[in-house]
Amino acid sequence: MISQRRLEDPGKRKRLELRLRTTLAGKKVLIVYAHQEPRSFNASLKRVAVDELSQQGCTVTVSDLYAMDFEPRATRKDITGALSNPEFFSYGVEAYEACKKRSLTSDIIDEQKKVQEADLVILQFPLYWFSVPAILKGWMDRVLCQGFAFDIPGFYDSGFLKDKLALLSLTTGSTAEMYTKTGVSGDFRYFLWPLQHGTLHFCGFKVLAPQISFAPEIASEEERKGMVASWAERLKTIWNEEPIPCTPDWYFGQ
Amino acid sequence: MISQRRLEDPGKRKRLELRLRTTLAGKKVLIVYAHQEPRSFNASLKRVAVDELSQQGCTVTVSDLYAMDFEPRATRKDITGALSNPEFFSYGVEAYEACKKRSLTSDIIDEQKKVQEADLVILQFPLYWFSVPAILKGWMDRVLCQGFAFDIPGFYDSGFLKDKLALLSLTTGSTAEMYTKTGVSGDFRYFLWPLQHGTLHFCGFKVLAPQISFAPEIASEEERKGMVASWAERLKTIWNEEPIPCTPDWYFGQ
Repeated sequence: MISQRRLEDPGKRKRLELRLRTTLAGKKVLIVYAHQEPRSFNASLKRVAVDELSQQGCTVTVSDLYAMDFEPRATRKDITGALSNPEFFSYGVEAYEACKKRSLTSDIIDEQKKVQEADLVILQFPLYWFSVPAILKGWMDRVLCQGFAFDIPGFYDSGFLKDKLALLSLTTGSTAEMYTKTGVSGDFRYFLWPLQHGTLHFCGFKVLAPQISFAPEIASEEERKGMVASWAERLKTIWNEEPIPCTPDWYFGQ
Repeated sequence: MISQRRLEDPGKRKRLELRLRTTLAGKKVLIVYAHQEPRSFNASLKRVAVDELSQQGCTVTVSDLYAMDFEPRATRKDITGALSNPEFFSYGVEAYEACKKRSLTSDIIDEQKKVQEADLVILQFPLYWFSVPAILKGWMDRVLCQGFAFDIPGFYDSGFLKDKLALLSLTTGSTAEMYTKTGVSGDFRYFLWPLQHGTLHFCGFKVLAPQISFAPEIASEEERKGMVASWAERLKTIWNEEPIPCTPDWYFGQ
């Protein structure tokens, strides 16, 4: 806690602000962004995140998956060298071996470098079928391979990305009311389980609370602006946030 | 219920068998299959399903997604005619309009025809990140569009595919013990929610119990054979099965 008194001392305040800026200046953020339209609401959320985090002095990198025409299919093309077993193709085994030998295809290696450098990874996407769009699912399937993001052992709390933060920022088609325990689509936390726990936490990420912008398509212009503003506002203090407890109780408890 | 006495009457038994075969002969099954390797365990499960269902007299169609190099990305290429709004691309809106005007790209229409004709859709896949591989996620994102699989209103129990059955047949990397309420990965039903409830049930499908083959890669050859055999055995009486209650309680209850 910073006491009010301390903040009232102009000299101390300046030094504190400087220290804060120096800390944040070193922070690196990767935004993995999955929307086709540059004028979309998702694009606005991505843009304010880039602006706000850059203003803080963070280095922000964006992987714009549709613009990159990112490959979602996990195939043998992902391995550039010889296969470990050409007679029987197991994607998991081959990607693991290729990762160790640095013979994964370049688009995967590029993304892995971005993840490796990031202190915080933000996934920005519209919810498709209670999950990420296929192009972003492909990013998860191909980039977060064994040997890079985890190993056996070396998962969940010992996942290789355990010194990093991750955050899902997503938009829904349905209203917040539908995503409640008594709503037809169930609590929104139910659909977060495979993404936050099964994927991000499995790789070791500390997961920050999700940023869910409900039903922007049926919201008023003012409401949409409010949702964008509240995301920007949250990002101002994002580095002070504590991760959620990534346990079944957070998702399915009362 | 068929009484034992009735079965003991050879004439009646023959007529019953004939009636059963006639009923099943009319049944159509679509298997959407997502594995890269024809000699894989997933391929074995797909093959016995084709064999068993064909022997019953069903018509079985397989969409072999990797062999088809199926496109997972939802982009404007999916709309062959003019866009409803060329200034602002919304995939959901454009796919809906294109579906009504029959101007979706041919690979989507082909898959929709297969789904339309099927009485039962089986999704056969290895679990990737608590979900389907991206290539199969893309099949869901692109094929099950508004106007074809559902409308607003016209979802969940009134989804357009409400006279059909669906079943997930999947393999895991982890053991059954890990997928329990007290296991590190939580109950396996948790990760089924977005797929079975959020996708299949949303489109109206009646969902049959999942067929989960746990950790075939670390099982013995005998255990693997047992898993394939039990899937074939189950399929013998698949048409007598009752769908699961697709409610939060099935997934998250005690």
